[in-house]
Amino acid sequence: MTAQLMADRSSTIVRLLRRNATRNLSKILESMRTEDIAAVFRRVVAGRWKQLFELVQPLERRAELLSELDPEIQEPFLQQFANAELAQLMRAMSSDDAADLLHLLPEERASAIMAMVKPDDDLSEAVELMRYDPETAGGIMVPLNFAVPAAMTVGEAILELQSQSEQLEMVFYLYVVNDHGHLVGVCSLRDLVTTPPEIQLADIMESNVIRVATDTDQEEVARVVARYNLLAVPVVDETNHLVGIVTVDDIIDVIREEATEDMLKMAGVAEDFDVSERKAVWSSARARIPWLGAAFLGGLGGIFIISSFQAAIETIAVLAAFLPITVGMGGNVGTQSATIVVRGLALGRIEVGRLWAVVRRESLVGIACGVVYGLALGLIVLVFFGSQQSPVRLALSVGCSITAAMGIAATVGGTMPLIFQRLNIDPAVATGPFVTTSVDILGILAYFIIATLLLGL
Amino acid sequence: MTAQLMADRSSTIVRLLRRNATRNLSKILESMRTEDIAAVFRRVVAGRWKQLFELVQPLERRAELLSELDPEIQEPFLQQFANAELAQLMRAMSSDDAADLLHLLPEERASAIMAMVKPDDDLSEAVELMRYDPETAGGIMVPLNFAVPAAMTVGEAILELQSQSEQLEMVFYLYVVNDHGHLVGVCSLRDLVTTPPEIQLADIMESNVIRVATDTDQEEVARVVARYNLLAVPVVDETNHLVGIVTVDDIIDVIREEATEDMLKMAGVAEDFDVSERKAVWSSARARIPWLGAAFLGGLGGIFIISSFQAAIETIAVLAAFLPITVGMGGNVGTQSATIVVRGLALGRIEVGRLWAVVRRESLVGIACGVVYGLALGLIVLVFFGSQQSPVRLALSVGCSITAAMGIAATVGGTMPLIFQRLNIDPAVATGPFVTTSVDILGILAYFIIATLLLGL
Repeated sequence: MTAQLMADRSSTIVRLLRRNATRNLSKILESMRTEDIAAVFRRVVAGRWKQLFELVQPLERRAELLSELDPEIQEPFLQQFANAELAQLMRAMSSDDAADLLHLLPEERASAIMAMVKPDDDLSEAVELMRYDPETAGGIMVPLNFAVPAAMTVGEAILELQSQSEQLEMVFYLYVVNDHGHLVGVCSLRDLVTTPPEIQLADIMESNVIRVATDTDQEEVARVVARYNLLAVPVVDETNHLVGIVTVDDIIDVIREEATEDMLKMAGVAEDFDVSERKAVWSSARARIPWLGAAFLGGLGGIFIISSFQAAIETIAVLAAFLPITVGMGGNVGTQSATIVVRGLALGRIEVGRLWAVVRRESLVGIACGVVYGLALGLIVLVFFGSQQSPVRLALSVGCSITAAMGIAATVGGTMPLIFQRLNIDPAVATGPFVTTSVDILGILAYFIIATLLLGL
Repeated sequence: MTAQLMADRSSTIVRLLRRNATRNLSKILESMRTEDIAAVFRRVVAGRWKQLFELVQPLERRAELLSELDPEIQEPFLQQFANAELAQLMRAMSSDDAADLLHLLPEERASAIMAMVKPDDDLSEAVELMRYDPETAGGIMVPLNFAVPAAMTVGEAILELQSQSEQLEMVFYLYVVNDHGHLVGVCSLRDLVTTPPEIQLADIMESNVIRVATDTDQEEVARVVARYNLLAVPVVDETNHLVGIVTVDDIIDVIREEATEDMLKMAGVAEDFDVSERKAVWSSARARIPWLGAAFLGGLGGIFIISSFQAAIETIAVLAAFLPITVGMGGNVGTQSATIVVRGLALGRIEVGRLWAVVRRESLVGIACGVVYGLALGLIVLVFFGSQQSPVRLALSVGCSITAAMGIAATVGGTMPLIFQRLNIDPAVATGPFVTTSVDILGILAYFIIATLLLGL
């Protein structure tokens, strides 16, 4: 559905909801995909969510819808369900989706629901998944109990698949295990369909299977799937037993999520990505204020540095005019370097052992840009501020300052994400307040030190 | 392969290349996946690429390798091939990959190669694809000539698939067409495998097929695939004839590319994402200088505004000390708002018809943050700058300035990407130099206007 069509459809649903036009609504909802209904929820006020939700039939579709809502909607919406009702819906969804919802619930509610689960319950798989960190392969996998021995023929494997088809959500590959249950091979579904039935799996399987461990970070899993163009990757435990698969549709979500997270962290708004009217302005502001605090502290540092050079400004008032451009250009080039390094790390384009070459390069690029803009600013001073005392020295001072500030900024911007990565902190965090703040302070310092030296203040 | 293992493997290959240890190299390369060999190229100097490339056997693997190299490597590497050699490699790769390479070549070389292609050539499909913009569905699709009539049974369809298996690269879905060749249905491969062979396709196919047009933007294609969890999406021409499919592995690349592009544009480095030593420092600097130019022009505007208030600074020199923090906090909050809106648009979370609600919200959040930091800064002035003339007025002036600057910045940051989107310019571009520059200038203006009014300058 196009954006415009979706917007119209949403408006219609909102209007019908207000009028309680249940029959019309049911008819519209029946014709829509659950993914599109999930998008409509963004336009509906929280007080009407339950009404809309209950018009979706049958239970399986409601379960699918619940798992497809944006997390910002899921979290408040889950509060509108009783535990038993929620458990019933979770039983009807795939176990990784159910586990995601359990993670979103407050701990005591999650425990209460998990306590209701008996060993043969459909929900027991989801409970199993709760053992894993939600941002690892274990946390995003679908448990898989289906694998076949290498001695099986293609024909037998197809029959086996057919008999299991109800439990298998998405089948892309057939995994082959040895007598100990260790993962030893893989066949694509296409291989099965296009091979004569009497051939043994051992003869057509790929035995060098790309796999990830349950504790592999989801970003790494995404890199593996992207690099090798896989549709699914098997997840093994520490003894190489196949425990699940991560499918490509979940990987797409991971890639989008991680990119969003990185962008928001770089801008210092990691906790506030909800542009709807649902979220109170004040709660958005509260989420952003701590990040701005780092910049504020840096700004205060700047204030005290500048006021300690107050005598210099009193002597040459025009010095104040060139400070913002110096700090600003430093900030810009610092952000450029930091962004390149952060994204290079995220895409696996920067390799271990080449880190310092990257920093050296960023520094040189920063200095090169700094020289260009230093010359430009120096010329502008000579032309427009020639009536000042000793204009040549002023031009030299201002030009050198901007070059220094940009060189320092590119170096800091290139280095910080690498240091953060070493310390196992997400490098994207570095690019936000940390780089800008330190670049601001260093720029202001460089500016006044150079002015003091060259203008003899 | 883990990052450390890959780094070791790369070092070994680089060493063996220097020693011309051909036999050892061939053995290592044979055991590696082409995706991993492609990653090794990042560590090898351009002068050794051809040597390494030719050790990979047979031709099909070399073709795969060539299509998997980073575009920054492909572009210079393609210069090392003769046209005939390149055409031969392109014939051995899938047509969408070959078309990508043709797009990378200088126009005259691409034309020369295309002129060599005869109608029954393997390359003719790739040439066909060159008609489409490379960033649309047509540009990233694989042409598809395989579709079956609705009256076919499941068993016949499987036989048909088996007979076509060599030409079909990745099969996920079987597309069903009517007598006019119009796309009317789709079955998953799983449906085929798990349905009795005598059932007709018409009985199991989904007739509401999600499709895209050849000129649909690749970002929109990615959104469709992500939203509906598809493995492939059919591409139709203006007459609803099936002309190709876009597969999920290409979508993953699109999502990563688009996120990278957005991040680089936001930082103002869209043209420079190559951290290797291959690219000369100067050519990197040259790519960044135009973007920094926008910030520089804004900075110059700032200089002239500040110097026109020189008298004010000469009267109260400490005014200069509070300017950078005011401008800086504005810049930070402006970037936050712009990032949220840009990412919201990219993910399709901001819907048509709700744009101005989003701007209003960002403004309010900016003002809320501004009031908090305005109060904080005012207090700091009272405590640390109490010895100045009329400290209360100074505190009030500085506090109001930062509130105004942050409110304005959030409004501008929220609005610009939406305006750019309306004008069909990528909103990510807005977040870079445009937002920061206008926010800087508006912040400086607000600062001095408020100071003039409150301090009676």
